[in-house]
Amino acid sequence: MSQQFTEVDKLAISTIRLLSVDQVAAANSGHPGAPLGLAPAAHIIWKQMKLNPSHPEWVNRDRFVLSNGHACALLYSMLHLSGYDLSIEDLKSFRQLGSKCPGHPEYELPGVEVTTGPLGQGISNAVGLAIAQANFAATYNKPDYTLSDSYTFAFLGDGCLQEGVSSEASSLAGHLKLGNLIALYDDNQITIDGDTNVSFTEDVEKRYEAYGWEVLHVANGNEDLAAIAQAISQAKQSKDKPTLIKMTTTIGFGSLQAGTHSVHGAALKPDDVKQLKTKFGFNPDQSFVVPQEVYDLYNTQIIQPGVQQFNEWNQVLEKYSEKYPDLGAEIKRRVAGELPQDWAKALPRYTPQDSAVATRKLSEIVLQNIQSLLPEMIGGSADLTSSNLTRWKEAVDFQPPSSGLGDYAGRYIRYGVREHGMAAIMNGISAFGANYKAYGGTFLNFVSYASGAVRLAALSGHPVIYVATHDSIGLGEDGPTHQPIETLAHFRALPNMQVWRPADGNEVSAAYHVALTNKHTPAIIALSRQNLPQLEGSSVENAVKGGYVLQEVENADITLVSTGSELSITVDAAKKLAESNIKARIVSLPDFHTFDQQSEEYQLAVFPDGVPVMSIEVLATSGWAKYAHESFGLDRFGASGKAPEVYKSLEFTPEGIATRAEKTIAFYKDKQVISPLHKPF
Amino acid sequence: MSQQFTEVDKLAISTIRLLSVDQVAAANSGHPGAPLGLAPAAHIIWKQMKLNPSHPEWVNRDRFVLSNGHACALLYSMLHLSGYDLSIEDLKSFRQLGSKCPGHPEYELPGVEVTTGPLGQGISNAVGLAIAQANFAATYNKPDYTLSDSYTFAFLGDGCLQEGVSSEASSLAGHLKLGNLIALYDDNQITIDGDTNVSFTEDVEKRYEAYGWEVLHVANGNEDLAAIAQAISQAKQSKDKPTLIKMTTTIGFGSLQAGTHSVHGAALKPDDVKQLKTKFGFNPDQSFVVPQEVYDLYNTQIIQPGVQQFNEWNQVLEKYSEKYPDLGAEIKRRVAGELPQDWAKALPRYTPQDSAVATRKLSEIVLQNIQSLLPEMIGGSADLTSSNLTRWKEAVDFQPPSSGLGDYAGRYIRYGVREHGMAAIMNGISAFGANYKAYGGTFLNFVSYASGAVRLAALSGHPVIYVATHDSIGLGEDGPTHQPIETLAHFRALPNMQVWRPADGNEVSAAYHVALTNKHTPAIIALSRQNLPQLEGSSVENAVKGGYVLQEVENADITLVSTGSELSITVDAAKKLAESNIKARIVSLPDFHTFDQQSEEYQLAVFPDGVPVMSIEVLATSGWAKYAHESFGLDRFGASGKAPEVYKSLEFTPEGIATRAEKTIAFYKDKQVISPLHKPF
Repeated sequence: MSQQFTEVDKLAISTIRLLSVDQVAAANSGHPGAPLGLAPAAHIIWKQMKLNPSHPEWVNRDRFVLSNGHACALLYSMLHLSGYDLSIEDLKSFRQLGSKCPGHPEYELPGVEVTTGPLGQGISNAVGLAIAQANFAATYNKPDYTLSDSYTFAFLGDGCLQEGVSSEASSLAGHLKLGNLIALYDDNQITIDGDTNVSFTEDVEKRYEAYGWEVLHVANGNEDLAAIAQAISQAKQSKDKPTLIKMTTTIGFGSLQAGTHSVHGAALKPDDVKQLKTKFGFNPDQSFVVPQEVYDLYNTQIIQPGVQQFNEWNQVLEKYSEKYPDLGAEIKRRVAGELPQDWAKALPRYTPQDSAVATRKLSEIVLQNIQSLLPEMIGGSADLTSSNLTRWKEAVDFQPPSSGLGDYAGRYIRYGVREHGMAAIMNGISAFGANYKAYGGTFLNFVSYASGAVRLAALSGHPVIYVATHDSIGLGEDGPTHQPIETLAHFRALPNMQVWRPADGNEVSAAYHVALTNKHTPAIIALSRQNLPQLEGSSVENAVKGGYVLQEVENADITLVSTGSELSITVDAAKKLAESNIKARIVSLPDFHTFDQQSEEYQLAVFPDGVPVMSIEVLATSGWAKYAHESFGLDRFGASGKAPEVYKSLEFTPEGIATRAEKTIAFYKDKQVISPLHKPF
Repeated sequence: MSQQFTEVDKLAISTIRLLSVDQVAAANSGHPGAPLGLAPAAHIIWKQMKLNPSHPEWVNRDRFVLSNGHACALLYSMLHLSGYDLSIEDLKSFRQLGSKCPGHPEYELPGVEVTTGPLGQGISNAVGLAIAQANFAATYNKPDYTLSDSYTFAFLGDGCLQEGVSSEASSLAGHLKLGNLIALYDDNQITIDGDTNVSFTEDVEKRYEAYGWEVLHVANGNEDLAAIAQAISQAKQSKDKPTLIKMTTTIGFGSLQAGTHSVHGAALKPDDVKQLKTKFGFNPDQSFVVPQEVYDLYNTQIIQPGVQQFNEWNQVLEKYSEKYPDLGAEIKRRVAGELPQDWAKALPRYTPQDSAVATRKLSEIVLQNIQSLLPEMIGGSADLTSSNLTRWKEAVDFQPPSSGLGDYAGRYIRYGVREHGMAAIMNGISAFGANYKAYGGTFLNFVSYASGAVRLAALSGHPVIYVATHDSIGLGEDGPTHQPIETLAHFRALPNMQVWRPADGNEVSAAYHVALTNKHTPAIIALSRQNLPQLEGSSVENAVKGGYVLQEVENADITLVSTGSELSITVDAAKKLAESNIKARIVSLPDFHTFDQQSEEYQLAVFPDGVPVMSIEVLATSGWAKYAHESFGLDRFGASGKAPEVYKSLEFTPEGIATRAEKTIAFYKDKQVISPLHKPF
């Protein structure tokens, strides 16, 4: 492709630069430097983007990810020009409370593919978007029917490249030979601490070659439009390698402070803005100006062709649906974000007569049962497949066909020992749309390695699932480096996050039921290494409420509430207490978040007034006071040893629980007991 | 160096292999594969290690880090042979509860330099050890007096190389030209998911060359002792580059399952162990056998020379101390792990008449005041120096002298945008000894990126400090991607972790006082971006207790407890309440962990019976119930906007607090109120 650029293109680029600078100036807050350097590349990419601003969810759109999310004024400028629901007035409210142009791009805004800002995430999300596209294309494209051929473009800066999460995702992207991924590295040699020389002197191009990427270089990203276009064209032809285009730019191009870190994160001075406008041929006294010919260019060269491609795509889908009615219906269902009817019937149910099984194994059975019903399910593990039990029997690995190890229609991803990369990639897969349900396995303790991406899943509302096995000291010999303590407290404190810790088979089924049904909330499912019995009183119907009474008793002396592997021990503790004529109700609370959605009436029936509540869980007690008056937990690190011995040494036994229950009853004997659920505000 | 190896060397290597296999077999749990492949390299390294098993803390010892910590049976074998306090009986108790040989190596065991197991950490710690050595040498070595010239050796596997944290640390190590760091990559091509081909096909050697490392290759690490020795010798000569030796080995070398992932994480079958012993010329029916000539070799070639080097080093130190009495005394003080007398007098104190200042700025003043007194202080930032305010005015950067940007005696580290790497490096610096006090800055929200390393700091007891600025929605326009919510709840739930959130200058001084004095507990110091007033009632003496009564009032209706930036708003709320004749006590609780160390009597004086307690903090409420009956917090994500507007919209104002206080008082009016500190068990 050889593209001709006109004076209007240059005018458009100046417009983008100044619109971005004006946003930051109006807010007197933000990052003008990167937009000034990156405007040419943004313009050139946009000119070839498949997009329809009226249908930002179109599954075959090209995706653009701004991994250096602090440059968001640039993205808002692009979305405005290309017809998204973002007016000049919106741009003027940049970084103001309630604005559609917040300080970093947020996923819920049409046209923003992923929330970025925390560095390294966007480029890793882009790997996930590219994986999803490759999978979708390999699954549904047919000879003469190309339903998916979109690209994922990403901008990233030095900061993104320094973050380990991007190293993990980039190494995997090279392994997977994702030719649909094109990343433009804004090589401006400036970070907040000054020149990149102070900390970042590695050879980035060589590193990406080592990962198996195609690496190109544009020497003058500020002005050489033809070179940028040529590099992107070359990248598109690199079908079996992702491409990194190192594009040397000047941060704050045109500003009096160009090339220094002072243009990175603060508004330009008014005089500087004025000289910039004069330099670019604009009226220095006007702001937020878009010449009509720029709107016209975007309309005729970007929006109209995009709408036409969108319409053609819909026609192809209709013809496809005639020839392949089942697949066509499946695509339409997925694009509508609906699960197949009756899928949940495949979730297994258990009775107390069924044998004791580790919940990680019960999770495997769920995945095995539902995988054929849910083609949108795409799972994997961070190199713990045989421990996490995340792979179903017939699974085909998602691998480049040339590897001989699988193909792109495969739905099982070998993430390698890359927890953070995995979680960020899962966010990208989810953000692709088409109802993708991404799950990934690791030990619960190492979900913490992925905290940065897990937080963004919750903030963005990606309904991904972390299959988090080995969820306590119950893992035994591996010891305290592998035994989570603070982990559930951490993620329960994260807004919009389900944290399931099922106690048996029915609860595992319930956890998956809620996690897969939920459209905007991620879920951690914490699973045991050790076998657990199927409990009397458990049911999928109860457990989907997040909490329920497992065993009721009249005139109870105490409510014992527990989760996961401690629930069955608690049941035994209640039996022990009954021998002393102490009546204990038992509540199972597998997920706080889901329980909190239930009616107040229901919640108070689970935790009624008048009965002291004691929680039992071999993890940090923090957070339990929301439901329990007293907590028996583990506010210390664990120990290496056989699991039963570790449990015993820390008194997580029927006796240990019963003793504490008795003390709790005695403590509250002469006191008025109100449910912790009652709150003054 | 050209080393000759004898039959006894081969016997020693077989002994190491079998001792390791026997440990795993006795426990029927553990990882035999890596020790079998790595025993030759371990033996060869040990033969040139400077060590004194009777003085494992000797500051000029060579360090060995087992980054692939699951191979710990190997390390225990080496420590046993080289005379550390680890008997054959101890080896027999491998992975048993209370054993000195836990499932992964733990820092508190003599000879274990850092706790490893969570992958990627050890090699990153090794970078920290190498930084500390370079700094110590540059600070104290004098012509004719070499007090520090030790090496850091590390083993790492494919898993460590896939983890992003190791990428971050390795990139920085290359930048810093750490010639004292020698890493041996166990290229055995096997991970838990099987062949590394499934996920890890990058060119590791090229990647490390891109980082600026010297890269060597040993083709047969199983048997070619001369090649291993030669590579290590060459690595030692690489004075201005760290070295990665890619050593191709066979996992489970000698086992019937050699080269497969089934030898990775499970004991060998009894028959396999027997054939292995026969193959290596040992009696197949005996276990834990060490031929006397192997003990003799370790004694004469490793222990005795090490003790001699230790004695010589002490003589050098004595002579050095005569010539440089101040420096000599300083070294002795540091090696003893003592801070200088009176250092704490440099901590600034404030009165309410002093002006309002952001606590991040107050932190800068502390660092400025104490830096000249504490040569062991070595700080930095993950590319947020100008935001974290972590650099004192006269600071010299820790940089390779050839960069022209600093030197190795510099004590300010430009970590780049590498939070996880920074935290893991800080652990290594701390583990070096010599009383190093490492601190590192980032935004509070991005301490979460470093969770894996922060957890290991707490587990290992490294007294490092995270200078965590921008600690709430008070950061304003950057918005919810940057505003912490769950972060304090997360780290407060982590055992052995101080989490300070000081409210004014005196509390900032107190936070540093406790954090720097503490020898075995890391500290997060959460600091505001926005200005905060100096409070009536605050003092360093009070704040060092972790919590105290800021304003007492008789016959109080309520206790309001708060931290950081909300404390002054709470003071204003109390004034507002006073207008309605409501009496509010005010408690400041800057660090839960430190407060929990105080006497029960003191704690109950702070939170007495009979007065309902309400907490106020613009972060997740989880965890506050330990002290407060009710909590006003933020269990949702924040928003992008001007900080005062964000505060107001979420009602963190005197009015918002007062209204909730009134509701709390009304709620508890007719109820018996006991302090949350009372517990039945």
